[in-house]
Amino acid sequence: MSKALVVLSGGQDSTTCLYWAIKQFGRENVSSLSFDYGQRHKIELEAAKKISEIAAVAHEILPIDTFSALGGNALTDDIDVQDDDDVDSVLPNTFVPGRNLIFLTFAAAYAYQRSIKHLITGVAQTDYSGYPDCRENTLSSLEQTLRLGMEYDVTIHTPLMNLNKSDTVALSEKLGAMDAMAYTHTCYNGEQPPCGHCQACLLRAKGFAEAGRVDPLIERFQFFTQK
Amino acid sequence: MSKALVVLSGGQDSTTCLYWAIKQFGRENVSSLSFDYGQRHKIELEAAKKISEIAAVAHEILPIDTFSALGGNALTDDIDVQDDDDVDSVLPNTFVPGRNLIFLTFAAAYAYQRSIKHLITGVAQTDYSGYPDCRENTLSSLEQTLRLGMEYDVTIHTPLMNLNKSDTVALSEKLGAMDAMAYTHTCYNGEQPPCGHCQACLLRAKGFAEAGRVDPLIERFQFFTQK
Repeated sequence: MSKALVVLSGGQDSTTCLYWAIKQFGRENVSSLSFDYGQRHKIELEAAKKISEIAAVAHEILPIDTFSALGGNALTDDIDVQDDDDVDSVLPNTFVPGRNLIFLTFAAAYAYQRSIKHLITGVAQTDYSGYPDCRENTLSSLEQTLRLGMEYDVTIHTPLMNLNKSDTVALSEKLGAMDAMAYTHTCYNGEQPPCGHCQACLLRAKGFAEAGRVDPLIERFQFFTQK
Repeated sequence: MSKALVVLSGGQDSTTCLYWAIKQFGRENVSSLSFDYGQRHKIELEAAKKISEIAAVAHEILPIDTFSALGGNALTDDIDVQDDDDVDSVLPNTFVPGRNLIFLTFAAAYAYQRSIKHLITGVAQTDYSGYPDCRENTLSSLEQTLRLGMEYDVTIHTPLMNLNKSDTVALSEKLGAMDAMAYTHTCYNGEQPPCGHCQACLLRAKGFAEAGRVDPLIERFQFFTQK
C-alpha cells in the first residue's frame, strides 16, 4: 500500500482529512506533518499533536522560521484579526500570500525523502474567504510543478475541495473523526474555549448547525455551553 | 519602472543574473535575496553579500531552517560531495529535491509583500547535472502556480536558461560583472581558493576556458594560479 502524508494544521478540516487518509490508505501508511511558522497561537500545534495521538499516526513538526521575515500578516504578527463584519472584504488580513504553496512544497520535499507519494490537504474552495492558494486550479498547477520539479510522481489529494462546512462535518462524523474533533483548534484569536465571534469560529459554528450536530469541541468545554 | 528581485546564491550564474537585472530594470529597482538554509558553506552567503555591495543593490538573507529537517543531502549534511568521476550519474547527491521550488516560492511571497513583480533566477537547463527544478518546463509551471496561488502577476526570468557556461562567461563580461565575479563562490567543497576538482569547479573552469577568459576568482588568488 502507498504511503500518505497529511498536512495537519490542527483544525477541523485537516483533521477530517487525516481520517479520510486513514480510511483510504490504512492507518499504518499514514503520517501527519505540521508547520511551526511562528504562528501566534501555538495551541494549533498542540492540537495537531493531540489529534495525531488520538488517530494513532506518526506526527512531525517542521519549523519554518522564514515566515516572520516575509512581511506583515495577522497570523504571525501583532496585527488585529478582522472580525466578522469584515467577512465580505476582498481578502482577510490572515492571508499569507502563497502560504499553502510553501507548506505543500515543503511537504512534497519531505515526502520525497521518505518515499511518500500521496499528500493530503484540507483546502476547500467553498465557504472560504477567497484564499487563492486553496482553489482547485492552483492545487492542480502546484501538483504539476512538483512532479516536474522533483521528477517524482506525487499526488495532492484535496478531499474537501468542493465541500461546504456542513458537508465536512457530515464527512468527519462518517469517518469516525469526532473524538479527535473535540481537540481541534479553529479560533483565529487563539482562544480556548473558542472566542465564538471571529470568522473561523462563526464558519465552524454554522457548519455544525447546518449539519444538525453539536460541536464536540464545544461539548468538551461544558462551562462554555452553559454561558 | 518595475521592481525586480534576484535570487542570489553568490555563485557565477546568479551574479550574472544580478547584472542582467540591473541592465534590464535599472540599478535602483533591483534588490537581491539569499537563503540561509543551513548550507555547510557559509562562504556562499558572504559572497552574496559582497557581490551585492559591489553591484550596489540592497541585499537580504532569509533563513530557512526547515531544510535540515527534510532529509539527508550533501549541501547541508556531512555527506561527501561526489567527485568529477561521478558526473554522469543520474543526480548528484548535492540534489535537494524541490530546492529551487522552495526558494522561488519564498522569493515570490517576499516579492508580493514588497510589490516586486519580477523574479530573476540563474537556473539553466544546459551544462547541468540533471536538476529537474532548473528546467524551463518546471519554471513555467511554477510561474503559473505562483500567479494562481497568490493572484499576483509575478514573472520569473531565467536569462541563462539556454546558455552554456561559456555563453554565461561571455554574457557576464558584456554586462560588466567581472569585478563581482572575482568574489563569487562556486566550489562544492567550500574551499577558497576553490578546490579545482569538484563538479562545480570543473564546470566553471571549462566555461572560462571555452570563453577564452581567465577567471577573475582565480586571478584574485594569485598564489593559486602559480601552483
